[in-house]
Amino acid sequence: MALRAITISAIAMIGALGASSGQSAPAKPEPIVIREQGSFAVGGTVHTAPGAYVNNAPTAAGQSFHGDHLYAFFQVPENARPLSIVMLHGAYVSGRSWETTYNGREGFQTIFLRRRFPVYIVDQPRRGRAGNSTLATTIEPTPNDQLFFDQFRIGQWPNFFDGVQFDRSRETMNQLFRSLTPNTGPYDAKVIAGAMTALLEKTGPAILFTHSQGGEPGWLTAIESPNVKAVVAFEPGSGFVFPQGEAPPEMPSAAGTLKPVEIPAEDFVRLTRMPIVIYYGDNIPTEPTADRGRDNWRVRLAMAKLWIAAVNRHGGDARLIHLPDIGIRGNTHFLMSDLNNLEIADQVSKFLAEKKLD
Amino acid sequence: MALRAITISAIAMIGALGASSGQSAPAKPEPIVIREQGSFAVGGTVHTAPGAYVNNAPTAAGQSFHGDHLYAFFQVPENARPLSIVMLHGAYVSGRSWETTYNGREGFQTIFLRRRFPVYIVDQPRRGRAGNSTLATTIEPTPNDQLFFDQFRIGQWPNFFDGVQFDRSRETMNQLFRSLTPNTGPYDAKVIAGAMTALLEKTGPAILFTHSQGGEPGWLTAIESPNVKAVVAFEPGSGFVFPQGEAPPEMPSAAGTLKPVEIPAEDFVRLTRMPIVIYYGDNIPTEPTADRGRDNWRVRLAMAKLWIAAVNRHGGDARLIHLPDIGIRGNTHFLMSDLNNLEIADQVSKFLAEKKLD
Repeated sequence: MALRAITISAIAMIGALGASSGQSAPAKPEPIVIREQGSFAVGGTVHTAPGAYVNNAPTAAGQSFHGDHLYAFFQVPENARPLSIVMLHGAYVSGRSWETTYNGREGFQTIFLRRRFPVYIVDQPRRGRAGNSTLATTIEPTPNDQLFFDQFRIGQWPNFFDGVQFDRSRETMNQLFRSLTPNTGPYDAKVIAGAMTALLEKTGPAILFTHSQGGEPGWLTAIESPNVKAVVAFEPGSGFVFPQGEAPPEMPSAAGTLKPVEIPAEDFVRLTRMPIVIYYGDNIPTEPTADRGRDNWRVRLAMAKLWIAAVNRHGGDARLIHLPDIGIRGNTHFLMSDLNNLEIADQVSKFLAEKKLD
Repeated sequence: MALRAITISAIAMIGALGASSGQSAPAKPEPIVIREQGSFAVGGTVHTAPGAYVNNAPTAAGQSFHGDHLYAFFQVPENARPLSIVMLHGAYVSGRSWETTYNGREGFQTIFLRRRFPVYIVDQPRRGRAGNSTLATTIEPTPNDQLFFDQFRIGQWPNFFDGVQFDRSRETMNQLFRSLTPNTGPYDAKVIAGAMTALLEKTGPAILFTHSQGGEPGWLTAIESPNVKAVVAFEPGSGFVFPQGEAPPEMPSAAGTLKPVEIPAEDFVRLTRMPIVIYYGDNIPTEPTADRGRDNWRVRLAMAKLWIAAVNRHGGDARLIHLPDIGIRGNTHFLMSDLNNLEIADQVSKFLAEKKLD
């Protein structure tokens, strides 16, 4: 396939200046007082090749390889609240998706730090700075920007949805596309949940935020780790776990078939130990449509509703908030980075206050 | 090759607790006051596949791919100094190598933030969170930990060097190995320098810190960008650029042959516009040895000395500090993360003060 190269550094620079000056926050924000910050790896495994290592003629023999851990960057504010927030990203992206919004405003990392939560931002195993994978992979530069534009519900390429909460400048789109980063090994929800559980051992009691594909490893982490005190899931996209025998039928859509995941009932009921809230944004149809990008989310929203019902049927405390139902319109798949992300953060804060988790 | 898997989450957890309490800093450090923080991508190119995009039956046709940018995370402290510091990592690692040390203390990111510099931490194109590469690659889990132990001059596996400035706990070693992350596309110093130059347009006048493999793209960035006001290079490992016709002979070593890089003289002389300092640590021999890990650095230190002489011969202001010569002993290849990293930071601060860059 022949590809055409366009250098757009100049465009990036223009946006760069905008990023520093804060397009949507004309008033200079208050400084943030950090008690402690840093990063580390946690979880993972070690593989060791048989044989003896020879220092001056090294081969694989006798050497080890560390992989399948996660990377976390943390900040603890002054006068921190008791519970930390751990943020797990979705598919094709890294912890960067919780940082600055694509149009250069503060993202959930800094918003919740300002709200006095210790914040942990994760790169999951085999993604971003946690790239060392115990399984090999091949990475190809697959052109998918237009598909993502549709699937992230920014609009129908090349048109934006009316009232979409996404800045229409070229640099904002550039930042979104450049936030994408590939898997460096096969995606494996259980590997991610294992490393996340190790992280939660370290953070202590915490609130787990997940986005999109992070949904499934998030549920598995909440099942495994007693330190997960609440789950706030933004548009979980796959891996709805149901007790064996209680899974709904598969749901076909214009973007493929969504399959539920069956797990042992004794695992599932551990999801009833904590409050759970799921948020979905706008432009999700209720009836089947040929529009691939939107139909993808029709079945996800539908299965999420059945999932909420299953958790509550087993004695849990789960709710789903479809934002248009409470008058919040125009949100894309990246709720936490949308133009109204402070309003979304306020919704989350209200939930945490109601559950006495703040 | 048969590999043996060992789960070491439990070990990681023990170290994790140590990391929070700050092993070498019993006194609680002062809080850090941040004026602004965030992240963004900059530089890179766009490839577009020919044809027309069909929203509801997407293929590559008509779709674009954004790649070869860098990722930067920045923090601006209260009462910031006029020049920012931009930190570019070395081979096999990411911006994480400037963050927390492997034994859980503050790294150069936070140390220089405390010293009131705005700090930009980079993941170079095709590494870490800047993973989207316009060229394909295959990633294999290659066991190399023991080779790295030797080559990073921590010791001769399995023995530590006497007096080495590296914590000998198993968790510290675990953190070092888990800071490694693969290339997600072919390494290309010019691609990196292009994105770095775009970054410098954004930061404005700045001091460039480079580590190891970051040396060569660092020199190319200093040549391209008038915003580079000084270069502080920690153990540059390859890509010593000389004016055409002035390169020294190749230097064979037990770890392979180090080749100088020839560039146009008019590019080279642009390195005379700014003060430059290079630091090398301990356990680097002056005479050839069969010891592969150490001999690798013998030729690098030797070529760096010739490089300093070439810069100064053309009217520049470059110096090389071999730390044992000024009584600082035991440093590994990761000077900025060693047990005495505050002492190394003090050396850098002294240099910046002398050059009136602070």
